[in-house]
Amino acid sequence: MSNQKIITLLTDFGLKDVYVGVVKGVIAQVNPHLKVIDLTHEIPPQNLFAARFCLHNAYPYFPPETVHLAVVDPGVGSARRAIAIQLPNGFLVGPDNGIFSGVLENLELQNIKVVALTNSEYWQVEKPSRTFHGRDIFAPVAAHISSGVKLENLGEKINPESLVKLSLNNITFTDSGIVGCVQHIDHFGNIITNIYRSYITKKNWSLIVNSNNNNDYFSSAQTISSGNTYADCQLGELIAIIGSHGFVEIAANGGSAEEQLNLKYRDKVEVYWL
Amino acid sequence: MSNQKIITLLTDFGLKDVYVGVVKGVIAQVNPHLKVIDLTHEIPPQNLFAARFCLHNAYPYFPPETVHLAVVDPGVGSARRAIAIQLPNGFLVGPDNGIFSGVLENLELQNIKVVALTNSEYWQVEKPSRTFHGRDIFAPVAAHISSGVKLENLGEKINPESLVKLSLNNITFTDSGIVGCVQHIDHFGNIITNIYRSYITKKNWSLIVNSNNNNDYFSSAQTISSGNTYADCQLGELIAIIGSHGFVEIAANGGSAEEQLNLKYRDKVEVYWL
Amino acid sequence: MSNQKIITLLTDFGLKDVYVGVVKGVIAQVNPHLKVIDLTHEIPPQNLFAARFCLHNAYPYFPPETVHLAVVDPGVGSARRAIAIQLPNGFLVGPDNGIFSGVLENLELQNIKVVALTNSEYWQVEKPSRTFHGRDIFAPVAAHISSGVKLENLGEKINPESLVKLSLNNITFTDSGIVGCVQHIDHFGNIITNIYRSYITKKNWSLIVNSNNNNDYFSSAQTISSGNTYADCQLGELIAIIGSHGFVEIAANGGSAEEQLNLKYRDKVEVYWL
Repeated sequence: MSNQKIITLLTDFGLKDVYVGVVKGVIAQVNPHLKVIDLTHEIPPQNLFAARFCLHNAYPYFPPETVHLAVVDPGVGSARRAIAIQLPNGFLVGPDNGIFSGVLENLELQNIKVVALTNSEYWQVEKPSRTFHGRDIFAPVAAHISSGVKLENLGEKINPESLVKLSLNNITFTDSGIVGCVQHIDHFGNIITNIYRSYITKKNWSLIVNSNNNNDYFSSAQTISSGNTYADCQLGELIAIIGSHGFVEIAANGGSAEEQLNLKYRDKVEVYWL
Repeated sequence: MSNQKIITLLTDFGLKDVYVGVVKGVIAQVNPHLKVIDLTHEIPPQNLFAARFCLHNAYPYFPPETVHLAVVDPGVGSARRAIAIQLPNGFLVGPDNGIFSGVLENLELQNIKVVALTNSEYWQVEKPSRTFHGRDIFAPVAAHISSGVKLENLGEKINPESLVKLSLNNITFTDSGIVGCVQHIDHFGNIITNIYRSYITKKNWSLIVNSNNNNDYFSSAQTISSGNTYADCQLGELIAIIGSHGFVEIAANGGSAEEQLNLKYRDKVEVYWL
Repeated sequence: MSNQKIITLLTDFGLKDVYVGVVKGVIAQVNPHLKVIDLTHEIPPQNLFAARFCLHNAYPYFPPETVHLAVVDPGVGSARRAIAIQLPNGFLVGPDNGIFSGVLENLELQNIKVVALTNSEYWQVEKPSRTFHGRDIFAPVAAHISSGVKLENLGEKINPESLVKLSLNNITFTDSGIVGCVQHIDHFGNIITNIYRSYITKKNWSLIVNSNNNNDYFSSAQTISSGNTYADCQLGELIAIIGSHGFVEIAANGGSAEEQLNLKYRDKVEVYWL
């Protein structure tokens, strides 16, 4: 008991069915003593950008050696690789489709080890289904890693440079500010950009977005003032703050910024120095 | 620690309230060391067919001696029996309303033991509420079973033949194919039939359904080609595959078959040999 | 293992994002052996009345020494206090905004101890974010309490009388019955009042509500008969019963009372002696 091992789960399986429960059952079949923590199962179906952000955001808050199992997998049944990655302070298991790009972009690739999950000895069944690798490959492999199996036993080593990358639009620094994009929209309707805290080098700034109001035929630019917390504007008004994840986010005090602005994943946003 | 015991939960309680949390609290009051795994709590209210399928689908993926607690209970407060069932490799606890029919239909009834939960010594309170037997009877009984209490202590033995059965429409084998029905619709909008993998004895087949298109006054038959995986058709198109659960299912590549076809539980579907 | 400690979580974070997962990660960083049980994360955003009821309802069903962490926090980032409360048989951790009023209203204040969480030694980071005290203050503090840290180490003692109270409209006892209000609406559409079982001192009674039917310009009083369980009326009809939580609730047999009546939190309801 001195070393309780943890597996986290992040999927787009939803909670209506038993898919998540089955993944946990398979983990328990391998080792019932592992602790499983749900990150979320409500990633919008096949939305790799949401998955990428959510995992990136959660990753730093877990103990060393935690295994993060992430399955948002539009290419299941096709030729995409199944992989496991050893990081300096944890493990990632899932499809090679860019879902881990957020976590990896801050790491030196020479410090990580990657294998393709080709050794069926560690799978749930020798012939996995074409549609549920979460159950048949990823869950048992994650449980074996968490139980101490070495990465090199799970399949052939592959070059970290060869991993599929999922990139957001580049950040551009201009004289007047920073151009970025929407990388996630959360449960509260907060719109989270990819503009990080450390980029905000001046004290006074606003955010410019192209709101797509349902009632307008044409989108129109809208300026949102910055503040320190949700309560720094009137009830119902929009405000741009540095969110708890460290990125610039747009919130509506007591409401939903998403409903007011109707922005989508990867839409352009712009920090403007005052 | 050498024998971590597991209880699974399957209900229609939803996650908006504390009903599920309270069930887990009651289990912890009996024995805080049990591990509880959620199968799902979003069975459509009182939909016993969905519950029957989900439990049947999840059951094989858990370690021996797991106790499956299932509460979808339209008859709570009426005369329906509360039961516990000992299977060769696990236990079932819940109302006697057919919810366990899926799990039981592949077992020899002589290999199972059933009791009615009449011994109030193992309940949460001596006088249970009329509306929440999940908390007052089923949860504490499941926790006691998982902690080693013998079935015969929980109440009177009953004849397995007397259990309420919840049957889907019969499968019919014809010269041209197989007639079955819809048994579940999942989070992704995949429509799962009751036609099992082993019935598909020929290589080339299609599926015929009566789609109930919202825009049509009359339903009309629609033919869906079969394939091996979601990606075997164009984006947005329908395909019939053997799902990960072993049943024929209808999926829309990158979309929702439910939205396209508007089929309901128990609607007729037909495999047609080509 | 002889003393498995439990933390419960109740929030309005929803399950779409990783906020709940991150809270569990932070708890595991402090002590991975603690057991975390979700009460609910789907409190309607910032609805303190729903939170107050749900916690009050769940609290009695947990083992002694359980730590209840509740974060519905419209005032995060403002001057509202962060608190921990020691009860005779457990602990509460969260914002001082009245969320604990339901649990506390049945306790003698001289039997509880309260501290303001001012000692940053027990926080996740010395400088917490302005918007996510659940992660930065409440989760680590709850984990420390559950691991044995004494309340007095967490900050300055404060007077229980000074806690923010969140009161429902008063119950009024009249000659003809009892006037109360709606305190929660659950997943099934059951409408739960604040009229407790023990107030119902006569055998025959009805409930009077002002239904706000969508099709009516004017609200109109509606009388609902009382019964013992959901099945004591025709399918689809409304009935008033004593719910499993001990309060008078309005249910629709096989349906949703909320949809039929369109009542809101704190709307008036009236028990009428027959």
